[in-house]
Amino acid sequence: MSEDAVRSSVEGRFDESVRSLQAFCRFPSISAQTDHAPDSRACAEWLAARLETAGLTATIEPLGRPAVLAAGPVEPDRPTLLVYGHYDVQPPDPLDLWNTEPFEPTVVDGDLVARGASDDKGPLFAWVAAIEAMRAAGEALPVNVKCLFEGEEEVGSPTLGAFVAAHPERLACDAIAIADGAFYADDTPSLTYALRGLTYIEVTATGADRDLHSGLSGGLAPNPLNALAALVASLHDDHGRVAVAGFYDDVRPPSDDERAMWEGLGFDADAWRAEIGATALAGPDNVPPLERLWALPTLDCHGLWGGYMGEGCKTVIPAWAKAKLSCRLVCDQRAEVVAEQVEAHLRKHCPAGVRLAVDLLMAEDPWLADPDAPAVEAARGAISEAFEAPCVLVRCGASIPVAIHFHRHLAVDPLIMGLSLPSDRVHSPNERFGLDQFRRAIHASVALMRRLGGRA
Amino acid sequence: MSEDAVRSSVEGRFDESVRSLQAFCRFPSISAQTDHAPDSRACAEWLAARLETAGLTATIEPLGRPAVLAAGPVEPDRPTLLVYGHYDVQPPDPLDLWNTEPFEPTVVDGDLVARGASDDKGPLFAWVAAIEAMRAAGEALPVNVKCLFEGEEEVGSPTLGAFVAAHPERLACDAIAIADGAFYADDTPSLTYALRGLTYIEVTATGADRDLHSGLSGGLAPNPLNALAALVASLHDDHGRVAVAGFYDDVRPPSDDERAMWEGLGFDADAWRAEIGATALAGPDNVPPLERLWALPTLDCHGLWGGYMGEGCKTVIPAWAKAKLSCRLVCDQRAEVVAEQVEAHLRKHCPAGVRLAVDLLMAEDPWLADPDAPAVEAARGAISEAFEAPCVLVRCGASIPVAIHFHRHLAVDPLIMGLSLPSDRVHSPNERFGLDQFRRAIHASVALMRRLGGRA
Repeated sequence: MSEDAVRSSVEGRFDESVRSLQAFCRFPSISAQTDHAPDSRACAEWLAARLETAGLTATIEPLGRPAVLAAGPVEPDRPTLLVYGHYDVQPPDPLDLWNTEPFEPTVVDGDLVARGASDDKGPLFAWVAAIEAMRAAGEALPVNVKCLFEGEEEVGSPTLGAFVAAHPERLACDAIAIADGAFYADDTPSLTYALRGLTYIEVTATGADRDLHSGLSGGLAPNPLNALAALVASLHDDHGRVAVAGFYDDVRPPSDDERAMWEGLGFDADAWRAEIGATALAGPDNVPPLERLWALPTLDCHGLWGGYMGEGCKTVIPAWAKAKLSCRLVCDQRAEVVAEQVEAHLRKHCPAGVRLAVDLLMAEDPWLADPDAPAVEAARGAISEAFEAPCVLVRCGASIPVAIHFHRHLAVDPLIMGLSLPSDRVHSPNERFGLDQFRRAIHASVALMRRLGGRA
Repeated sequence: MSEDAVRSSVEGRFDESVRSLQAFCRFPSISAQTDHAPDSRACAEWLAARLETAGLTATIEPLGRPAVLAAGPVEPDRPTLLVYGHYDVQPPDPLDLWNTEPFEPTVVDGDLVARGASDDKGPLFAWVAAIEAMRAAGEALPVNVKCLFEGEEEVGSPTLGAFVAAHPERLACDAIAIADGAFYADDTPSLTYALRGLTYIEVTATGADRDLHSGLSGGLAPNPLNALAALVASLHDDHGRVAVAGFYDDVRPPSDDERAMWEGLGFDADAWRAEIGATALAGPDNVPPLERLWALPTLDCHGLWGGYMGEGCKTVIPAWAKAKLSCRLVCDQRAEVVAEQVEAHLRKHCPAGVRLAVDLLMAEDPWLADPDAPAVEAARGAISEAFEAPCVLVRCGASIPVAIHFHRHLAVDPLIMGLSLPSDRVHSPNERFGLDQFRRAIHASVALMRRLGGRA
């Protein structure tokens, strides 16, 4: 059976694949909202049935929202590929900004418009359509396929890490494709080989045991808001670098190859600045902008509050103030070590009269894979072939917890194949996924299976 | 009619006076919150009706929140005393720390517990009760009495200055008693001859034009919370001194006499620290603690907020952050000059990428009177008599804007008879006013009228 036969099968079945994707997008599988739990279950069951029809054996796994785990026929001499995606979606609000119904998928100017079309039902379903097309063409799959499609990604995959850790044999594989994420730019396909980690802490500063009158007590009473502001300020130096002792010790600088590769991307920092509506960019001047986003750790204050936050004047010296802080981390930083460094810094700089409580809310290590690994080469080739454009290698400043779970518990570095476009309005009204993008994503899935199976 | 008859009248009517004070405290006359404007009006009308019943002619003056202006019968050969108080109160937040309802005045262990009981409804109403008791005893008032009870003291009396300036003849007087403020210590009655001024500003820092994802944008996007914390921190140096250029230039040091008098008070800084439940005191080490409270200007942050303030983690770089800041000022600083100094400092230190808006919410100059004036002597005598303890001369770190208005527009330095106790939890949950304190405050009011009228 030839490559052409499969290609013809994908094309011949494409209208049917679009109709199936529309059916998939009709489920309001919103993981953040409890009253949509039955929709998530129905969506997972529909997906499992679809995989069974395609020749896989599927089970519904009882996570917070059900996950679908499926496996095709196994031939011991073929490599095994695990495909990850998520069928849950963000809430569609604000509803009044949609031009069509968010859960009535509609084709508009060559795009499928629906909540979840791009994040992540379209990219996920491209894999199902690819497997179906191969089966319809009578061709055996070039790899042993496993699928893990979860329903809680949009609420942080709270139980998936434990599931992966508990089932290394059921998930055992030689390669992993993560069908989630986006191109570097609308016209530039990309593969992501690194993610930043995250350390998230909450700090509580306490002064007196009650709110005080700033006239009667001001000048003598410790003010925890003044103190917490000073502590947050002390975390950076005048050049925008994080001033915590040891913070950069474990940072692995990008290789010369990486730096050259990133320069080739022609990142337009001024356009990026204008797009977010800011008057200038932040971070250390001596580090190129893209490197600040991808390869340098950060420390950001996400919330700070205390005292009087209402209308007008209240002359209070508050009893307490709180801040939420996080660091985005890069290899080889360790999330728990950085949390200890930040806490030590805060305690060292805390002024007399103010007491601190520091709570660690989240600790996720960064991830950095070998950009020269053979599987990476296979994935880039498959994407370049399907999209008829060179696939660039990129890092990403965000954190995708499942990538770390796979790395840690399955000892496989995933291939993060983000096939959405930056302009897809992910998480926003009128989310869309181009039909041509969907068609090419199916071809890319076929191509990756062939390349991994040695049949490229 | 004898002094004894009036004393008996005060005592005989006391339970009724307490019930009236409870009715007065039931009005949630919160001047900082717009939706409480009708409560302020109702409270002012109740007070005016009460004064009419006591034989005065009262009018409601249309200030931002209505003021009550009243005058008793005039005899040209008697001196005229103007009594000032305020019926508005601070917001009761945080509500969950109250043991009783803040606007359901409750007697607990001999104290009346309610928002406003001590600041300033109790001390104000002592004057009403004193006038009522004299009238009930059939005694003519020893002075021509005028009352000015305002409803906007807790928001800085924004329109009272203009009102005083516009009506010097209606307010013309020989002495002024301000029924607001506190004893030097719970067992030490005092008369205040100096107040700090106040400059209150709100700062808004803006970065991008929307909230951003800290993973995708962190390291490059300006963070207005990081920036505002740094700005607030930059307002002090490492020794607790305000770091704003020119800030201390106009500060007049206390006289040698004053310093000697204050040393005689035996201020116990460690007991003060323990009472507020703090582990250490703030402010410049090289200035004696009492001088930091009374004769040194301050800068305090009263509120700071922005970003995510809920449960758990949200990795947002917020679009904006806000802070409320004020300076307590001493002679000869000028409130508007200091506001300009602080704004200039903030603008000078604001990092690139962050825009600032600075709003001046309040500007009130400090006040310092002659501690040897005859009216001061009369007031100290009245207080010593009523509380059976020597009345000491003190300064106060707080601001009573009306004092400066009277000084400026009526050319009379007011007598600040602060009859609350430091332990009254003013501006805090469970604010209280002792019933015995209320009783003696009524007697002190009678005694001051007698002494000023030459009938002591």
